[in-house]
Amino acid sequence: MKVVLVGAGNLATNLAVALQKSGHTIIQVFSRTHQSAEQLAQRVGASAVTALDQLAQDADIYIISITDSALASLDYSAFPSHSLVVHTAGSIPMDVIPLKRRGVFYPMQTFSRQRIVDFQEIPIFVEATSEDDWQFLTDFALTINNKVYRLSSADRLYLHLAAVYCSNFVNHCYAMSAEILSQHGIPFSVMLPLVDEVAAKVHEVSPKEAQTGPAVRHDENVIRHHLALLDNNPQLQEIYAIMSKHIANDKL
Amino acid sequence: MKVVLVGAGNLATNLAVALQKSGHTIIQVFSRTHQSAEQLAQRVGASAVTALDQLAQDADIYIISITDSALASLDYSAFPSHSLVVHTAGSIPMDVIPLKRRGVFYPMQTFSRQRIVDFQEIPIFVEATSEDDWQFLTDFALTINNKVYRLSSADRLYLHLAAVYCSNFVNHCYAMSAEILSQHGIPFSVMLPLVDEVAAKVHEVSPKEAQTGPAVRHDENVIRHHLALLDNNPQLQEIYAIMSKHIANDKL
Repeated sequence: MKVVLVGAGNLATNLAVALQKSGHTIIQVFSRTHQSAEQLAQRVGASAVTALDQLAQDADIYIISITDSALASLDYSAFPSHSLVVHTAGSIPMDVIPLKRRGVFYPMQTFSRQRIVDFQEIPIFVEATSEDDWQFLTDFALTINNKVYRLSSADRLYLHLAAVYCSNFVNHCYAMSAEILSQHGIPFSVMLPLVDEVAAKVHEVSPKEAQTGPAVRHDENVIRHHLALLDNNPQLQEIYAIMSKHIANDKL
Repeated sequence: MKVVLVGAGNLATNLAVALQKSGHTIIQVFSRTHQSAEQLAQRVGASAVTALDQLAQDADIYIISITDSALASLDYSAFPSHSLVVHTAGSIPMDVIPLKRRGVFYPMQTFSRQRIVDFQEIPIFVEATSEDDWQFLTDFALTINNKVYRLSSADRLYLHLAAVYCSNFVNHCYAMSAEILSQHGIPFSVMLPLVDEVAAKVHEVSPKEAQTGPAVRHDENVIRHHLALLDNNPQLQEIYAIMSKHIANDKL
């Protein structure tokens, strides 16, 4: 397929590399920042443009990877009406794109420019308006990997929300742990085997079954003691109390 | 070394296998439950006992891996005074053992009986009362791996507390994510690549630097929207609000 990428950020960079590996041709990269457009375009042998009126009109698919707020204000009249135009945002409905052939191509992962992630492992959630475009987009995603799911905008909102718990909130738990350790001169690196094992476990059993620790054991002594250790740190204490209460309630 | 294990639970099982691999001899396994003692003893070629007065008196080291509450009420007069007696609990002070040659041997990991974990990767925190025993215990731990740290009972409390954030609370975030997904017919397995990448990232950058998502971007629109999606789920909504507030405050 001939692909135009609108955006040159972390997701666009990772996606461009994966698309090229899968045999697609990135014909053009758009970014308002000349350097960003140029840098990614060079990497995948595309041309770089910084104005939407220079957008190539002959691509099979246009993939828009820009911030959520920029998605709402983009000038969609620049896109040809005969091609499929998709965005890659988890929390934005498909209908932000006011075109007949619109869709969503959402690779669910946390992207950094420094780390090229393995697209083989990333589930891709697609959405379109017609059965032909659902099929087109599904086939296109399947050239990258076999973890392709059809998902409506409504359900994708909950998927994105669930991802916040699994990534942002998990990472914040790491950060709180690192903070406690640093106050006692212990490097966070001692936690890494534990971090890895906790992640590995939920590949085999459900998170609910995998739960261990004082809260699920209803070990009030340890919980009270831990809360007392946090007397000088009300923020961490608040999180400790609420998380322990929820784990003990076992409402999930 | 000749080792006696008191306890036959998850940690004792994993430790017994690791000690045997490192060339030590498990001469005896004690458990009040005959079947547990027998099962682990057979696995490592030891004898099984169910009464403390049958405890072998000629081991170099006695390793007690039992519940925190059982540690406090154990009959320590059964142990020979000339040998080192250690426990493996993260949150219990060394002085729970009322013997001259007492110590702590705390392998920080989450253990399940079903999964034999790789002791090569587990940091071991040791404590003793005399420089000779510190050295004895350090050398003993170094036969298992090279991640051996000396740590006082006071600092170990904070280490254990930090581990609760990195394992129990992280796992609860996974569980909340799984709950949201199941309400929308999406399997938790779609999250596993994200789970793995979030864990992999903090091997390279600090958790604070690794933070992404709406809260750290101060994206109030997405946060408000997510909170509204959780209107029927006050527990998850409460966690979402507090975690987002803390991430945005960036007090760490």
